Amino acid sequence: MRQETHPLVALVRADRARGAGELARWCVDQLAHAVRASAAPTAVALHAEVSSVASSLRAARPSMVAIENLVGRWLAALPDPTGSEIGDYRQRAVEASDQLVTASRRATAAAARHAARLIGPDRTIMTHSRSATVLMCFQELAPNTRAITTESRPPAEGRVLAQELSALGIVTDFLSDQQMAAFVGHADVALVGADTVTGDGSVVNKAGTRLLALAARDRGIPFYVCYEALKRTERSVSELVLESHDPGEVATLNLPHVTVRNVYFDVTPPELVTAWIDEDGPTEAPSGDPEGGPARSSRP
Amino acid sequence: MRQETHPLVALVRADRARGAGELARWCVDQLAHAVRASAAPTAVALHAEVSSVASSLRAARPSMVAIENLVGRWLAALPDPTGSEIGDYRQRAVEASDQLVTASRRATAAAARHAARLIGPDRTIMTHSRSATVLMCFQELAPNTRAITTESRPPAEGRVLAQELSALGIVTDFLSDQQMAAFVGHADVALVGADTVTGDGSVVNKAGTRLLALAARDRGIPFYVCYEALKRTERSVSELVLESHDPGEVATLNLPHVTVRNVYFDVTPPELVTAWIDEDGPTEAPSGDPEGGPARSSRP
Repeated sequence: MRQETHPLVALVRADRARGAGELARWCVDQLAHAVRASAAPTAVALHAEVSSVASSLRAARPSMVAIENLVGRWLAALPDPTGSEIGDYRQRAVEASDQLVTASRRATAAAARHAARLIGPDRTIMTHSRSATVLMCFQELAPNTRAITTESRPPAEGRVLAQELSALGIVTDFLSDQQMAAFVGHADVALVGADTVTGDGSVVNKAGTRLLALAARDRGIPFYVCYEALKRTERSVSELVLESHDPGEVATLNLPHVTVRNVYFDVTPPELVTAWIDEDGPTEAPSGDPEGGPARSSRP
Repeated sequence: MRQETHPLVALVRADRARGAGELARWCVDQLAHAVRASAAPTAVALHAEVSSVASSLRAARPSMVAIENLVGRWLAALPDPTGSEIGDYRQRAVEASDQLVTASRRATAAAARHAARLIGPDRTIMTHSRSATVLMCFQELAPNTRAITTESRPPAEGRVLAQELSALGIVTDFLSDQQMAAFVGHADVALVGADTVTGDGSVVNKAGTRLLALAARDRGIPFYVCYEALKRTERSVSELVLESHDPGEVATLNLPHVTVRNVYFDVTPPELVTAWIDEDGPTEAPSGDPEGGPARSSRP
């Protein structure tokens, strides 16, 4: 019998608005809701039920390692159900979720503060897509900062970021994606979030991030990536799947010989990154190498 | 009294679909129509009338030197109206238009043939925007070539190109603009047209062209520009105006502090160009310099 996709997994697969960190926290929060709402009669039955959903969630968004990692930590924190009272099991599972979500929020905020400190006030920051970590950095600096943001099609989550920056009183230039090179010369620094950071410092993030990194290097401005360490994986880029989504989000052409592509992520190699900023602070690319590149022996 | 904008000038200013070469030829063709349709009673009156429209047309699209140049050549080819019969004047003005349009078409086709010869069959060509010259190159090579094309927002003239490539039977990947870096690794060569080429070899073309050039260099694939020589100017980039158009083409946000930008063109510096291809053939960047850059003593 073919197993039905759990509604939570379907929602996570369909989500186009949230970045990896927000979505990972939402998953673990929703798993706590599932634990509370379950009608399972025993701890063993409840464990079997939520472990199955959690395992499916871990694989739902292969370009977002944070989901795999945070849900994995929750699974590891679950008590042994054998011999557990269902009430105890439920309470400890919910507490584990709360603790992981709080820790992830704090790590994200800490990374954002480090980014804000590194950049300093009264600078023009150019970004791409909508990262919750980058937004927190803007919150730290508002209103004494300026922004250049991109539409970030599809689904154009940059429009949401523009609303958030406007609410913070930050003077913002909003561009369609293809204008990046025309405006990067007006920025002091480029700052993006990450969906995943691999062991060699490669950054998987919304498609277009690598274009911003190339444009930043071309103009000699720093390219910073900020993210909580949860987003790191020891896997290499070649082992990661870059998700494609519905081509109809790009265009409906229906032309013979023409294939509409909708690859959501691209990979920015470490040579294009000036500094990786997580909750422990920035790791700058070795300064001796004009092409950049992280110190292999240090973070990330 | 404030002078009304001539309808032809208004149409040229509003045109978002055609590249500089197509639009320049259309202008000169429309001037011939204006000569034929005019009710002016004498050659002197007709000359004054069409010279005024032509002068306004030359200034209508400051990022498209081809219009200034081709209309300028037509003005220079007009007979002296003093003492001319109006019938003779009209005939010579129309003939001058026909000759200039034919010569421009031939030059464009020749540039496209040179590009096709340089690239050769069975390659994957990546382009941006919709250039009539690049389309002719695809026609030369079809169906033994493959294409990777971009939407090229706004107004997404890449959708028109996708239709044209489909009709030629060319297998095509169609991308939204921010996917460029994710796909350039699948291309053998990048090829674009130009709206204007300055004396030092800088290329003014649809915004996003510089991103493609950066992505091509990053992957080590050649970046070719093909255009008829009419598009060259001796002016420097700083003397050119990069047109902005209605921000509503990008987004309607109406947010305090947020300015929507719609700069239509960007400038690709000569260091990013592998070869400039016009009707006289390709001029390759000096091979001794890994960063490229044109020979200042040779074309362009």
